[in-house]
Amino acid sequence: MALIVQKFGGTSVGTIERIKTIAEKVQRFRNDGHDVVVVVSAMSGETNRLVGLAREIQEHPAPGEMDVLLSTGEQVTISLLSMALQELGCPAVSYTGWQISIRTDSHHNKARIQEIDTEAVKKDLGEGRVVVVAGFQGIDECGRITTLGRGGSDTTAVALAAALEADECQIYTDVDGVYTTDPRVVEGARRLDKITFEEMLEMASLGSKVLQIRSVEFAGKYNVTLRVLHSFEEGPGTLITLEEQDEMEQPAVSGIAFNRDEAKLTIKGVPDIPGVASRILGPISRANIEVDMIVQNVSADQTTDFTFTVHRSDYQRAMDVLQKTCNDLGAREYDGDNKIAKVSIVGVGMRSHAGVATRMFEALAAEGINIQIISTSEIKVSVVIAEKYLELAVRALHSAFELDQEPVSGR
Amino acid sequence: MALIVQKFGGTSVGTIERIKTIAEKVQRFRNDGHDVVVVVSAMSGETNRLVGLAREIQEHPAPGEMDVLLSTGEQVTISLLSMALQELGCPAVSYTGWQISIRTDSHHNKARIQEIDTEAVKKDLGEGRVVVVAGFQGIDECGRITTLGRGGSDTTAVALAAALEADECQIYTDVDGVYTTDPRVVEGARRLDKITFEEMLEMASLGSKVLQIRSVEFAGKYNVTLRVLHSFEEGPGTLITLEEQDEMEQPAVSGIAFNRDEAKLTIKGVPDIPGVASRILGPISRANIEVDMIVQNVSADQTTDFTFTVHRSDYQRAMDVLQKTCNDLGAREYDGDNKIAKVSIVGVGMRSHAGVATRMFEALAAEGINIQIISTSEIKVSVVIAEKYLELAVRALHSAFELDQEPVSGR
Repeated sequence: MALIVQKFGGTSVGTIERIKTIAEKVQRFRNDGHDVVVVVSAMSGETNRLVGLAREIQEHPAPGEMDVLLSTGEQVTISLLSMALQELGCPAVSYTGWQISIRTDSHHNKARIQEIDTEAVKKDLGEGRVVVVAGFQGIDECGRITTLGRGGSDTTAVALAAALEADECQIYTDVDGVYTTDPRVVEGARRLDKITFEEMLEMASLGSKVLQIRSVEFAGKYNVTLRVLHSFEEGPGTLITLEEQDEMEQPAVSGIAFNRDEAKLTIKGVPDIPGVASRILGPISRANIEVDMIVQNVSADQTTDFTFTVHRSDYQRAMDVLQKTCNDLGAREYDGDNKIAKVSIVGVGMRSHAGVATRMFEALAAEGINIQIISTSEIKVSVVIAEKYLELAVRALHSAFELDQEPVSGR
Repeated sequence: MALIVQKFGGTSVGTIERIKTIAEKVQRFRNDGHDVVVVVSAMSGETNRLVGLAREIQEHPAPGEMDVLLSTGEQVTISLLSMALQELGCPAVSYTGWQISIRTDSHHNKARIQEIDTEAVKKDLGEGRVVVVAGFQGIDECGRITTLGRGGSDTTAVALAAALEADECQIYTDVDGVYTTDPRVVEGARRLDKITFEEMLEMASLGSKVLQIRSVEFAGKYNVTLRVLHSFEEGPGTLITLEEQDEMEQPAVSGIAFNRDEAKLTIKGVPDIPGVASRILGPISRANIEVDMIVQNVSADQTTDFTFTVHRSDYQRAMDVLQKTCNDLGAREYDGDNKIAKVSIVGVGMRSHAGVATRMFEALAAEGINIQIISTSEIKVSVVIAEKYLELAVRALHSAFELDQEPVSGR
């Protein structure tokens, strides 16, 4: 007997058949005695169809009208899922964003939720109804429709779970949980039963895109228990929780994340004077290029080498900016490489385990993989290597940290 | 410098190209200095698409959820038309039904408008914006979405025009006005410059389906000046107004209406006693069959013949009911005919012109057309004839009342 918020994305409700299947799943939870609130996205393809219509009219449609348009997608889904539930004899009622006052700021296309009025939802739950809520959308203080941006339905689900003080927020996806790494790269990749919010954030931002970062941050902030599950297969999924202090056996590393979306730029022989970093990155930032890793080495001869990474699609623009900076600063030279990959080991356990980084470097060295950049945070060590070694590196690390073996504590 | 409410139906906004064309038309009115409120329907085909999705789930979807689903159709159109206006440099803002509180009762799928909050619309108009409103939809006192039923966008437009005290409510259609009769039947059919609400009601209910009856009733009740115009052709259209008493030359007949949707049933030799009419029609009504014309002839032999018409699709059911009634009443016999047509002459002028009915009967007799039933109201004379004579009768009457000639007063 729990209060559960379930979120189904566009693929899970992409056809009438799938909507019916989801309705059956929801009904099973209700028949087990749970109160269920369902958050849904637009049927897959619908948002693109609507965007296509708008683009035929305007290259850059007004964000406010775009939100009026896009929000119809979820509205279609909530009515269809409610019908499917009713067809099964399961009482259900739909709510758009404005109908339960999902109040947001006025940043159309990327609004942030400020408040939710849960009174009507609680009343419906109390009367035995399943409540079906449109994800992704809200309303600002002027009564205009807003949308939350990509992955916004996850955020709606987490925000609702927080507002309702739900026991669990279940995010249904096309994978059956969070893995130690990408199973397409490492055959022995294993589903994690549990992961902490912090680890999930590092995994997600590093390329294991199961959940939207914003919704995980949100869940962590409001202490909402998240669970990632497969929409159409049975299984326990992966639970995402606050770090549990009482677990004796914390493995050092929970997973291996990676991406190959980045490119590396280096400027060499820069005069080593205060303010030089901002003189290098300022022009990059003003060109609207986002920077990920930044590494600066001290040097003996009063000059320094400065390296940073950008998204690969910004590589050429960043090189052009850097050329000018190189001249302005009187630096010796600059170069770049867009054939790189970033590999990271992530785990809250590494806080208390010494030697994790060393073990990582040794594993890579054993395979003859050269490390170009190293960057660390409290629960993560990232390295940049040549792209061609990516799969080899991930497999080597997965094995070195024994991630293919079930941990003793069941973690 | 007027305040104009313009309504465009699904065909007029059926493609992106058409939406752009409509935007140009709206902009021309605004550039002429008018304040413009536009009411739009769902793009043609969209409502059927949504109904199709629902039907895949439930044979009889809950009306409330159906309204949540269907109302997305107009919401798509308002955003697209607003974008098209903005693309032309014309400031515009969209409103769904709930955003301007188009308050209705809770009869889902066929709700009636009770109140509209015009404050936001007036503010936008004052600030030079074109206001684009979703037709067909509203919100009940519980905050649930309602729809107004077929032709509901016409009603939205008229209700808005009434609430805003607009100078004119323009209904754009695929015809350039109201005609003396169906141009497909009579080559010389002529567009009327003006018609009264009463005439329009009689014409509409008799089969010249240009406007929804409800919206005409509404317009008459609140004295909203209506104009029917073609969406994509220029022209003055037809003005629908209160009867103008000061017009000297009122033609006796304004138009010829007809339909072939009816069937006729007769019960003969019924004992002529009080209450017999209700004993015949009561069972028909209880079978949910609507009756149109009713004629009873007195007779000499203490019995009477009783004839009525029903929609042709109800013919067989009505015959079955009548058979039982015939036995119960001890009537002599009953029969029916579903190969009939109704032809009506309509005109407020006939109030003051004697001999209009006579002229009608003479014109039909001259063509050898037998009249089966006659029914009259203050501004209408209807006859039922064999269906095969329909076109011949309409042409004969159109000519007999000189409708193909421009009247002297310009009417």
